[in-house]
Amino acid sequence: MNLYEKLADEIEEAVRRGVFAPGERIASVRQASQHHGVSIKTVLHAYALLESRGVVETRPQSGYFVRESAAPRAARKTALAGAVASEVDVSRLVLSTLRSIRANDAVPFGSPYPDPSLFPWRRINQYANAIARRHSSWNLIDDLPPGNPELIRQIARRYAENGVPVDPDEIIITVGATEAINLSLQAVAKPGDTVAVESPTYYAMLHAIERLGMRAIEVPTHPADGIDIDALAEIIGRQPVAACMVMPNFQNPLGFQMPDARKKRLVELLAAHGIPVIENDVYQELYFGDTPASTLKNFDTNGLVLHCASFSKSLTASYRIGWAMPGRYRAQVEKLKFLNTLTTPSVPQVAVADYLRHDGYDRHLRQVRKAYRQRARIMTAMVQRFFPAGTRTSAPQGGYVLWVELPERVDSMRLYQAALAHGITIGPGYMFSTKNDFRHFIRLNYSYEWTAQTESALRTLGELVAQMA
Amino acid sequence: MNLYEKLADEIEEAVRRGVFAPGERIASVRQASQHHGVSIKTVLHAYALLESRGVVETRPQSGYFVRESAAPRAARKTALAGAVASEVDVSRLVLSTLRSIRANDAVPFGSPYPDPSLFPWRRINQYANAIARRHSSWNLIDDLPPGNPELIRQIARRYAENGVPVDPDEIIITVGATEAINLSLQAVAKPGDTVAVESPTYYAMLHAIERLGMRAIEVPTHPADGIDIDALAEIIGRQPVAACMVMPNFQNPLGFQMPDARKKRLVELLAAHGIPVIENDVYQELYFGDTPASTLKNFDTNGLVLHCASFSKSLTASYRIGWAMPGRYRAQVEKLKFLNTLTTPSVPQVAVADYLRHDGYDRHLRQVRKAYRQRARIMTAMVQRFFPAGTRTSAPQGGYVLWVELPERVDSMRLYQAALAHGITIGPGYMFSTKNDFRHFIRLNYSYEWTAQTESALRTLGELVAQMA
Repeated sequence: MNLYEKLADEIEEAVRRGVFAPGERIASVRQASQHHGVSIKTVLHAYALLESRGVVETRPQSGYFVRESAAPRAARKTALAGAVASEVDVSRLVLSTLRSIRANDAVPFGSPYPDPSLFPWRRINQYANAIARRHSSWNLIDDLPPGNPELIRQIARRYAENGVPVDPDEIIITVGATEAINLSLQAVAKPGDTVAVESPTYYAMLHAIERLGMRAIEVPTHPADGIDIDALAEIIGRQPVAACMVMPNFQNPLGFQMPDARKKRLVELLAAHGIPVIENDVYQELYFGDTPASTLKNFDTNGLVLHCASFSKSLTASYRIGWAMPGRYRAQVEKLKFLNTLTTPSVPQVAVADYLRHDGYDRHLRQVRKAYRQRARIMTAMVQRFFPAGTRTSAPQGGYVLWVELPERVDSMRLYQAALAHGITIGPGYMFSTKNDFRHFIRLNYSYEWTAQTESALRTLGELVAQMA
Repeated sequence: MNLYEKLADEIEEAVRRGVFAPGERIASVRQASQHHGVSIKTVLHAYALLESRGVVETRPQSGYFVRESAAPRAARKTALAGAVASEVDVSRLVLSTLRSIRANDAVPFGSPYPDPSLFPWRRINQYANAIARRHSSWNLIDDLPPGNPELIRQIARRYAENGVPVDPDEIIITVGATEAINLSLQAVAKPGDTVAVESPTYYAMLHAIERLGMRAIEVPTHPADGIDIDALAEIIGRQPVAACMVMPNFQNPLGFQMPDARKKRLVELLAAHGIPVIENDVYQELYFGDTPASTLKNFDTNGLVLHCASFSKSLTASYRIGWAMPGRYRAQVEKLKFLNTLTTPSVPQVAVADYLRHDGYDRHLRQVRKAYRQRARIMTAMVQRFFPAGTRTSAPQGGYVLWVELPERVDSMRLYQAALAHGITIGPGYMFSTKNDFRHFIRLNYSYEWTAQTESALRTLGELVAQMA
């Protein structure tokens, strides 16, 4: 094959793959000659060939453009097809649920994320913009782990105001709580180790354990009180447990707030055995009560609590700002953060710090809490109205998800597929355990505003459940 | 202890820890009462006690403020002290070097990052700002792995223009190349596996291997040609090798560009044994020649090349936008990305896509390449001038680091410490190997503008070397 034919084939292939869009200008002859290291003449030949094939066209004085008719070979695969495998791979299932929300504009009952329209998006971006204008450049080195010092101070201040004891030197900024949890787990346990989790548990915990080659042991967890401490004690007495992962405040999916006395007992039990505990506290600010919830840190005297949190549920998700307060494991987590992603993007860190300093956060959170409290009530009432007898719901004390027990004959995975066909997503119970204990349970997100469309979707869902029951 | 004393103690402790800065307002009596779940009276008592202790003061009509005299107990520990352990822990050494640059405003010869003042910071931020104004909110779901579709298309387009064959569907956006490399390695090898690397190698490769519980085997690497393919073939013949990690373009620290024929041979050798190869190509755009460098992807017919790159060396480091093109391991890497950090921040992704679409990138890169070519020449000449006989330098064909062999008696770690005392950082050879093969080598960053201060620092460094030689 001639050099010019090879070049023409390459460009045509790129067009077919959608790299260049119809109507888009391709490189000038001179640019292409430089980039591909071939002569001007070769490029001219190649472009003429592409013209004759109907792939590009020339426009006088402006160059070569991809023809409107030269569409990509096939539309991008949509994620929906084959979203649900017969064998349950939890992380794939989670990703598929999220994708079907995006691809189909589906009703997001299945989403784990809060309604982004409640976030003070404009205000935070104004801070980001001001930072960008203030600095003539940004040195990556300034925000190396542990992270931007002012953001760290603002986070520490927030904890102090919420009655949580905190040392700013302990805080390490991460890419969301997801990274904080992964790094914390890697800091305290090694492949093959056993890690105790709640059951049901937030699936990100199971993913972190699986990915690091560890083994999860599921501890029965009460919908109103949290992890069964006696059962945990028995497990610890029976076998080595390297770590424990819990969500004491507004647990996903159950929504409980563990009472202070039980938090204290949990910390003491684990401390007595020298077992570190990873506390996922991303919902702390979304309480429905009158005062902020305490954390395991409030009861930690040995530095064995690795506390993880983020702004993704309370302020902005797309900025991806989380943090870890890893107690005595601080040095290890800081090093792992450096190895995993080097630093967390700078401007988002400083923008959040500026937002926090300028005091709108409390007002914003009061609004969000009020909205979620109302929406929890509406969703609960509507489930009771539309779903068949034998359906039971959790009583969330914070956060924005409802846990629903369906009549026993309903398989949540079959329901998931049937709902998806109606453009509705749900969180099937399979996601929340490695066992099959929650096959007739689902998780519903109530963070979005209640509309006629939502109501109609929930009614449809109720009908599907009734058919399966 | 009374409740109000406890509250006062907590707040005082927070002030001593620097959580609240001198002059800063603390929570109002009403806020504090709500947050701590105590009565207004208790807060008033606590605040009065803090006033009597000289920790806070009242200002009429405005509330309670931390007194200027109530300074934190001690200045934050600076990272410099104890930066260098006697036993070499490479990742700690790297982090310490970076911190001493920040903490002491030291001469950044030791930095692995390019001079940020060459980045088009203002323009990219203008795009970010425009995006923020255009959208009323941002749904995290829109940028789930593989990432923002428009950014992916722009990256694919750039490869196509540079003569690298690419399928947009293969690209996965990550938090910098660091994350791409970590995930790629985890996708192809498991704990206990052996991974072949160049020697010297970029230390992030060693960190990734160590962190995942794998074992590095170091393959001799030629300063002008790259990894010794015969030596690699021999190793593969002798023992199982799960993966190979290389940097064929402008390798850090050597600066070579592997000739096309050798790239092809490397890909073929590994393909013949079914061994995946992770290609770290973060410097691809920083070539000194007339045409873009090819990549291992140009020669890959089996999908065994996992190509990793980022914009951190060529466009913006603080945005942390990288990507992987993992060939046949695409599904695994995408899943791992989801588990590791969920998504990469959205606005930075779209801002970079917009910047790329509006065509300033080529012009910007031409300026950067010209600057680096000049600065490489200056740095090389100055090393020859200031360093004692027996010093030899690499001949970088791209990128922004120079590899310097010192007279054999010089220990680069002792030099590192001596230089640091003069406010100068260097990259000691110890960083680039798990063995002690490069104890009398150092890496110097030449991306910064050459100034009288730089020259004086390099002269001092040369004198220190002469003393030790």
